[in-house]
Amino acid sequence: MSVTAAAGFRAAGISAGLKESGSRDLALVVNDGPLDVAVGVFTSNRVVAAPVRWCREVLSGRRGDADRARAVILNSGSANACTGPGGEADTAATAARVAELLGDAHPGLQAGSVLVCSTGVIGVPLDMPTLLDGAATAVASLQDSAEAGHAAATAIMTTDTVPKEDTLRLDGWSIGGMIKGVGMLAPGLATMLCVITTDAVIDADAAQSALSRAAARTVNRINSDGCMSTNDTVLLLASGASGTTPTTEDFGAAVQELLGRLGRRLVADAEGATHDIAITVTGAVTEAAAEAAARTVSASNLLKCAIAGEDPNWGRVISQLGTVPESVCPFDPEAVDVTINGVTVFRHGALGEDRDTVDMTPRETRIDIALSAGDAAATVWTNDLTHGYVTINADYTT
Amino acid sequence: MSVTAAAGFRAAGISAGLKESGSRDLALVVNDGPLDVAVGVFTSNRVVAAPVRWCREVLSGRRGDADRARAVILNSGSANACTGPGGEADTAATAARVAELLGDAHPGLQAGSVLVCSTGVIGVPLDMPTLLDGAATAVASLQDSAEAGHAAATAIMTTDTVPKEDTLRLDGWSIGGMIKGVGMLAPGLATMLCVITTDAVIDADAAQSALSRAAARTVNRINSDGCMSTNDTVLLLASGASGTTPTTEDFGAAVQELLGRLGRRLVADAEGATHDIAITVTGAVTEAAAEAAARTVSASNLLKCAIAGEDPNWGRVISQLGTVPESVCPFDPEAVDVTINGVTVFRHGALGEDRDTVDMTPRETRIDIALSAGDAAATVWTNDLTHGYVTINADYTT
Repeated sequence: MSVTAAAGFRAAGISAGLKESGSRDLALVVNDGPLDVAVGVFTSNRVVAAPVRWCREVLSGRRGDADRARAVILNSGSANACTGPGGEADTAATAARVAELLGDAHPGLQAGSVLVCSTGVIGVPLDMPTLLDGAATAVASLQDSAEAGHAAATAIMTTDTVPKEDTLRLDGWSIGGMIKGVGMLAPGLATMLCVITTDAVIDADAAQSALSRAAARTVNRINSDGCMSTNDTVLLLASGASGTTPTTEDFGAAVQELLGRLGRRLVADAEGATHDIAITVTGAVTEAAAEAAARTVSASNLLKCAIAGEDPNWGRVISQLGTVPESVCPFDPEAVDVTINGVTVFRHGALGEDRDTVDMTPRETRIDIALSAGDAAATVWTNDLTHGYVTINADYTT
Repeated sequence: MSVTAAAGFRAAGISAGLKESGSRDLALVVNDGPLDVAVGVFTSNRVVAAPVRWCREVLSGRRGDADRARAVILNSGSANACTGPGGEADTAATAARVAELLGDAHPGLQAGSVLVCSTGVIGVPLDMPTLLDGAATAVASLQDSAEAGHAAATAIMTTDTVPKEDTLRLDGWSIGGMIKGVGMLAPGLATMLCVITTDAVIDADAAQSALSRAAARTVNRINSDGCMSTNDTVLLLASGASGTTPTTEDFGAAVQELLGRLGRRLVADAEGATHDIAITVTGAVTEAAAEAAARTVSASNLLKCAIAGEDPNWGRVISQLGTVPESVCPFDPEAVDVTINGVTVFRHGALGEDRDTVDMTPRETRIDIALSAGDAAATVWTNDLTHGYVTINADYTT
């Protein structure tokens, strides 16, 4: 179960014909209410695809009522990015068609109540006749079953090797979601898309606050290869159908737990990766400083290659850590410890325990960096850099 | 000719036995004057190796006379980084021994007049008996010949496949240099080292100014894989032996030209690279903005893989460009053009000429990004990301 786990939601995932392979390529999620709360977080890239602009306008109230939407339609096969005014018109037309098609269940539904997400190749216009025909098929296929949620999760895949979904059952309410992406990126097909649905009774401000905070601590701390998509979107829809109103704390914790789990599935399916790497910085003066230091270390190709080679190369950790500006994350290099998979190989600025005792065979690799400068901590996830990554991204031609 | 091209310099490059391979591993450059001007620029990494600290102390006057040095000894085989107080003592002992050995030519020479550079594995102590024996051999081998300069350039190599040296003959004076590094990095053996010698009559302030400015525009604009070494060092020694005093402009231009050429040799020998990539941003509001944008694009593994696959993937240029903060480099995404090897594949925020017309076969790949926001420009060099890079950095074990 994923987007259909919470009461009040139907979904579909069908093959419209946008992908040459004939695989599923069009997903639809509909919130039958009673609430129609919708909030989102989006890529911070300055170059954004037409559907991201559309979603921002919908949720800001420039296309309808702010923080409200009844449906999300998501296509793979084309990102509809860098497609100019035609791309904007295509997104608007898609939303209008879905609103019209959903008119039986939701009379008078307007385009401004329909969110649109796209993922696939940049710079290629959408095949609109195929997409609009597919939208009709998707509406006709809507169900509240686990199978329908799974089909939707499958339809948003690009170079993902598996659909990614998860669900939490809380005290009287549920939350579930689907995500796609292969570590924030893909060849030409860069994008992370995520749709979360809940039947909790929650208002838009609380939902936005919970989503923003959860995203900052989960998917925004995945740094597979430093590349940020033009289309990254995380949406949260609330139906209120459970009749249960969780506390702000419980709701926020659930969103963060779910998004954390979904994010870990991105890491686990990252292109070519053979190791997932958790870089945890402790003892920083602030959480932001810890995150900045962990993010910097996560960006080292040398380190990522070392982990691929199962080499506990603390020198590459330390030399990368040293590039974090003092103003961003103060620490004394002589006070730093580095622990890899439980073995403190570098202690107080010098050699620690024998690196040969580090077991590098598990897929999950834990690099813990203790700064001894404060009490704050943060973890950033990345992957190793392998021949598989190069093959996927060099040999693939859009 | 390289470090021995300018009058007043002798050099040596010998095999001391620090490398298991038996290859040359110890270089010495001596400035016989009459001047003994010495200036340097160093890594901005907060974790710095013992020899970098030593050089900074020498040149700042804390170990002798500021901006003066008679000799540089450089070893490969160990970076003497993260080696604690013992590493500091080893560097000081090396300088002291070289000063003593050079006493015949330069009576009373002190350790504080000898610069020390190291490159090799991080965290491994120097083999001091071998190094000190080698220093004696190096002093005995000193010559002012082209062969001696070449031997020195060979002795500082780590994973470099070729020695890198160049010389400029100006109006009555000369400048030459040697450099090592494989694009700012190497497996465990991360480091760029460079020694430039000139027989111009120049004072320390002018020399430092010229070197700092040249480094900022040349070697500091190479971003092979975003990894910064703990040992990066560029030294400039002036003997004044030509008796010629160039203008500040001429001297600065020569240093920049030489360091630019040497830097290009680093790029050309970068680990596993099959393409050198020049990313030029024009039409920026300031040179710093142009450099920041070019540097950001140069850090995209997706783009670097695309170039390895000879794919003129402008989508990966644009999506990476969009991650540059507006506060750092303002531009309107709709006004941007991207030209790859002369073909404007992206124009004013939309599709440009046919990407299939781009010839991607030359080793040198030119990506020109016109922002239309101002008049400033900058070029950053990088390399493609290949299976060879992964092989060198994943499969190599220190």
